Amino acid sequence: MPASDAVEQPEQPWSRRRLRSTNERLLLDRLRGLGTASRAQLARETGLSKPTVSSALASLAAAGLVHEVGTHAPERGRTAVLYAPDPAAGYALGVDIGRGWLRVALAGLDGRLVARSDVRNRARASAALTDLIVTTARQVMANSGVDPAEVAHGVIGTPGVYDEERRRVRYAMHLPGWGRAGLVDRIRAELGVPLEVHNDANLAALGEYAFGVGAGSRLFAYIMIGTGLGMGIVSEGRLFTGARGLAGEIGFLPWHGRRKPERLEDAVSGVAVVEAAREFGMRGQLTAKAVFDAARQGHPDAVRAVELEGERIAHTVAAAAAVLDPELVVLGGGVGHSVDLLLRPVREHVRALTPLRPRIAPSRLGEDAVLLGAVAVALDTARDLVFERRTAGI
Amino acid sequence: MPASDAVEQPEQPWSRRRLRSTNERLLLDRLRGLGTASRAQLARETGLSKPTVSSALASLAAAGLVHEVGTHAPERGRTAVLYAPDPAAGYALGVDIGRGWLRVALAGLDGRLVARSDVRNRARASAALTDLIVTTARQVMANSGVDPAEVAHGVIGTPGVYDEERRRVRYAMHLPGWGRAGLVDRIRAELGVPLEVHNDANLAALGEYAFGVGAGSRLFAYIMIGTGLGMGIVSEGRLFTGARGLAGEIGFLPWHGRRKPERLEDAVSGVAVVEAAREFGMRGQLTAKAVFDAARQGHPDAVRAVELEGERIAHTVAAAAAVLDPELVVLGGGVGHSVDLLLRPVREHVRALTPLRPRIAPSRLGEDAVLLGAVAVALDTARDLVFERRTAGI
Repeated sequence: MPASDAVEQPEQPWSRRRLRSTNERLLLDRLRGLGTASRAQLARETGLSKPTVSSALASLAAAGLVHEVGTHAPERGRTAVLYAPDPAAGYALGVDIGRGWLRVALAGLDGRLVARSDVRNRARASAALTDLIVTTARQVMANSGVDPAEVAHGVIGTPGVYDEERRRVRYAMHLPGWGRAGLVDRIRAELGVPLEVHNDANLAALGEYAFGVGAGSRLFAYIMIGTGLGMGIVSEGRLFTGARGLAGEIGFLPWHGRRKPERLEDAVSGVAVVEAAREFGMRGQLTAKAVFDAARQGHPDAVRAVELEGERIAHTVAAAAAVLDPELVVLGGGVGHSVDLLLRPVREHVRALTPLRPRIAPSRLGEDAVLLGAVAVALDTARDLVFERRTAGI
Repeated sequence: MPASDAVEQPEQPWSRRRLRSTNERLLLDRLRGLGTASRAQLARETGLSKPTVSSALASLAAAGLVHEVGTHAPERGRTAVLYAPDPAAGYALGVDIGRGWLRVALAGLDGRLVARSDVRNRARASAALTDLIVTTARQVMANSGVDPAEVAHGVIGTPGVYDEERRRVRYAMHLPGWGRAGLVDRIRAELGVPLEVHNDANLAALGEYAFGVGAGSRLFAYIMIGTGLGMGIVSEGRLFTGARGLAGEIGFLPWHGRRKPERLEDAVSGVAVVEAAREFGMRGQLTAKAVFDAARQGHPDAVRAVELEGERIAHTVAAAAAVLDPELVVLGGGVGHSVDLLLRPVREHVRALTPLRPRIAPSRLGEDAVLLGAVAVALDTARDLVFERRTAGI
């Protein structure tokens, strides 16, 4: 074949400026993984030359993205300056809107929380709920001395699915008024922080991937059992959301149980646990937690109710296994505090229902999964935005 | 921020040689999309300069990947030479091993079939089946005058899942002896063609994506109903196979039907249609096809059996919708010839079972879906291999 020197780049993607920026970003990300590192260590880790590392570190320091944090004096050789990413270069906001609790957290770019607030959600109308969110988020920022302008990105977790076009949350049956159009826009405007909205089970799954039991998993499903029933799917570190964001809406799984109710969500939720316990003979003012506590002490009606709940969750796990083949299924949500009781019956019924054998494990983050997932997603965007802004226009 | 000229590429990925090869590949792929094109047209389409296009076309022609196919004389301007990819630069082999039929096809690099053979699969042991595959594939190559050395890649579709480590097909209950270790290695050695093995429902899904009703779909599921029950999932043009290749093994979905059998696969397969018809009162030597034919003529027992089959398939569709949220569900497989009868009951029962609304459509490729999917997958690899081999070492 005749060789030719007419070599050309269609869109010139690898200009010198972009390459420099890519090197800086590579270095910053590696430094984030290491925590702190010297120039020599970074050169080894990235394959870049020491002059390139020096120059990139100088640029990153001038942009306020990296700072010197001390020195390292080895037994032999010269004392080296240690660098670390500056966690105060920008902030990420996470919000978890649950029926019982509203949780808000603010993290530096290193992912560490700098402030957090959990308040009871007693709002029974949309105005009260948006007010509560705005007030709590403002308090969290004020408590940490962070200006809203420093918050590069925020993520709100909610039941249901956010409809970008209609500017409203859909399928959030358990939050009164929360489906009204324009609420998120209002919160965004009042806080002065860019916000996006995600399904809570999806965020919990990402939280378990970033900080919990799903870390490093190729494909896992997080099943959220509480007021409702949801599932988040993480495939190779990314959310699997389906064609219209409805993947994992397992409350809609067909359910032909021998006893009513006939929607799987209603059969598995905390309310169903209470109903089952009552049917089996328990009396008094019952909550799901009370039933689980009684089962833990061996109360036979409560034990039967928990057994039934385990069987129903197993149905969900078996369906997810047949369709998705996850290597891991994580159980969490409002009944998370009682997963210790549920694991055995769930595993036993899964074995009876299907030859497929996903590992079944309890959530590690418990009730913080949605909040930490929101922070993780907000962090991803915040890191990109802060890097772009601070290195732009050079 | 101080600018620096110390720009460096960590792994030198964009060498001149690689860039030239990338340009040639870009050009070849674009030419494949267009069918035929002139130099000027290719320059417009790719953003490359005319000298680069000329040089790359010369290289591709010298490598035997592209040839001149004629000229185009516009009303104004000069007559232009038209180029096209050479479909005979290499070949791809597709094989569909079904319980009733063995199908083998050979395609040129343009994707057009150059030979095909469909033979009854009467093999009832592994030796007979491998002999049949080898003989038929040799015949197909001989019929088209293609030497095995010209076949760059082949793909075999089979029920079950190929276990690379143990060198055997698992879960292929309906093909006697086909689970023995080393069979695929034997076929590969006897044919002298590189082969890989994929699940038949997965290939059918890819076939519908490449040539059928799934074209352009962001996320769709192909449900294969025949001797067994399987599902292939295509997400953004790629197979979604799960953590261990078992995604879509919907025969294992929990099934709490009011009537036995209790495995969904057994409840939905062709055999179940016959059993249901018999239970409803049909007599004689029944096959699934005979039941569907009778239903088409209004035979009441057959109509009831088809209605029940539709209800059971709807259960599968509803489960897939809740877990995956596909925009499209394609119905195919051995009952494909009767999808016209099933569509209405399936759609009605899905509406009753779930608020989720995937589009439900019949397979366009019918009984050819697995074979054409195998060809499509083999083509992808064959194109890469032929390009690499023919442009290597320059």
